[in-house]
Amino acid sequence: MSKIVFAYPGNELMAKSIRNGLDGLWGEIEMRHFPDGETYVRLITDVLEHDAIVVATMHRPDDKFLSLVFMLRLLREAGASRITLVSPYLAYMRQDKQFKPGEALTSTYFSELLSPFIDEMVTVDPHLHRHHAMSEIYTANATVLHASHTISSWIKASVSNPLLIGPDSESEQWVSKVARDAGSPYVVLSKERHGDRQVNISIPEIDTYRNHSPVLVDDIISTAHTMIETVKKLLAVGFSKPICIGVHAIFADNSFQELLDAGAERIVTCNTIPHGSNSIDLSPIIIKALR
Amino acid sequence: MSKIVFAYPGNELMAKSIRNGLDGLWGEIEMRHFPDGETYVRLITDVLEHDAIVVATMHRPDDKFLSLVFMLRLLREAGASRITLVSPYLAYMRQDKQFKPGEALTSTYFSELLSPFIDEMVTVDPHLHRHHAMSEIYTANATVLHASHTISSWIKASVSNPLLIGPDSESEQWVSKVARDAGSPYVVLSKERHGDRQVNISIPEIDTYRNHSPVLVDDIISTAHTMIETVKKLLAVGFSKPICIGVHAIFADNSFQELLDAGAERIVTCNTIPHGSNSIDLSPIIIKALR
Repeated sequence: MSKIVFAYPGNELMAKSIRNGLDGLWGEIEMRHFPDGETYVRLITDVLEHDAIVVATMHRPDDKFLSLVFMLRLLREAGASRITLVSPYLAYMRQDKQFKPGEALTSTYFSELLSPFIDEMVTVDPHLHRHHAMSEIYTANATVLHASHTISSWIKASVSNPLLIGPDSESEQWVSKVARDAGSPYVVLSKERHGDRQVNISIPEIDTYRNHSPVLVDDIISTAHTMIETVKKLLAVGFSKPICIGVHAIFADNSFQELLDAGAERIVTCNTIPHGSNSIDLSPIIIKALR
Repeated sequence: MSKIVFAYPGNELMAKSIRNGLDGLWGEIEMRHFPDGETYVRLITDVLEHDAIVVATMHRPDDKFLSLVFMLRLLREAGASRITLVSPYLAYMRQDKQFKPGEALTSTYFSELLSPFIDEMVTVDPHLHRHHAMSEIYTANATVLHASHTISSWIKASVSNPLLIGPDSESEQWVSKVARDAGSPYVVLSKERHGDRQVNISIPEIDTYRNHSPVLVDDIISTAHTMIETVKKLLAVGFSKPICIGVHAIFADNSFQELLDAGAERIVTCNTIPHGSNSIDLSPIIIKALR
């Protein structure tokens, strides 16, 4: 029984790393769009009684979901003995509570739609805020990996005298972990959120760290507004240009350029979502989890 | 118990016709996209123990599916006593057979994904080719409506001395019906398909009809390649510019303009998919089915 690794379109780099790391086989699947926008899927590799591993990161999930489910179901029908979804970035983890009456609890809706098609899931730093464990929402067996140790290693190798900075209290849980592994001090700022796109940030007393290299760390960079505001305030109080590290490089609209323009020295992300800023390779921890 | 009519975004015109025709209530739902591409859905109207009717036509289904399912599930959780999906154009009806080994049977996959979220479906002229009845693939109770009678009425009112022309043998079943209701003669051409985008068409002996106004009729206009080839051949053998009628106005890429450029006198479609060419209103037959 071999492990056969399939790439959902756009996930070829990560899938190839995983295939190589597992010494697995490469799964061929044809996926294309008809002129009317419907998706055609055809499985070419025989998966009967083999483990199928599908690599499909889920940023911008709405237009991917249906074709991914077609692919997963096709593998099931073709007799794969086990289907593992490697989704380094997992979508719909943020609407985990009804903030207003009538809101769809999409974290639950999404997980319940996806779960029947997979036996196991591997993901990296899902946005577990009010949910504390993946098992609260996913019926499939979910393995949650953390980027913090790999990020720490990158910081130790690449930045001298770093000061780690978490942009808000939500980031504390894992900025503290990155700092501990990197042997660096850290501070966490406070943030007030006003709607989806506007945030205000207050900087605590950090005169102590003026000679450090500021390294901003956050899990998801989406609009980058939080990072942009933080960068501006750090510069305003006399810090040097910070390195900005994110696990998940969503970068909505023109936010990557806006973050550079705001004064980021460099933007570094993990390869959970393919992006030009990917410099921290998480395939080793994913491969280890899949063994 | 009232009928409450909801529009999936983009379906407001048809939904308002249906609401008016049923003397129903208007359902308010908020749907917007976060910067990261995820969808936020919030139900504003109380649906507890009411019938909810959701109008959502399904052209370009991949990016609509997830948010539509969120909306349907939210209505269920809010206690709607019955959920009816009005999908004047229904997607994924064409991959109804494995033409090559390993192909996903997406007509079945799609119907099985959607069915649990609805009690009833109303659709117009779904592409039933190898499947003969909707009940073969949809577990929800499906009402299939036909545009032919309404198209016939439009032709009788708008075209003098029409000759109806079906572009291929698949279209015969219902071009013949349109012709009978319109009291017009009809011919059906033969077509050879080479891949998704290329077709050749042969024209039978039609000298008899040189004084008629040619009216091409087909169910789906997607790439419009079939219609374009037919128009060209009709013009080449001396016909006047034909009127082109389609039920479902998909119009992939630049196909609407290409069909005009090829020599269509006028392009007329039913309003199953919102498009500038919609001139044949099917809301009366939909309203009748929903009563």
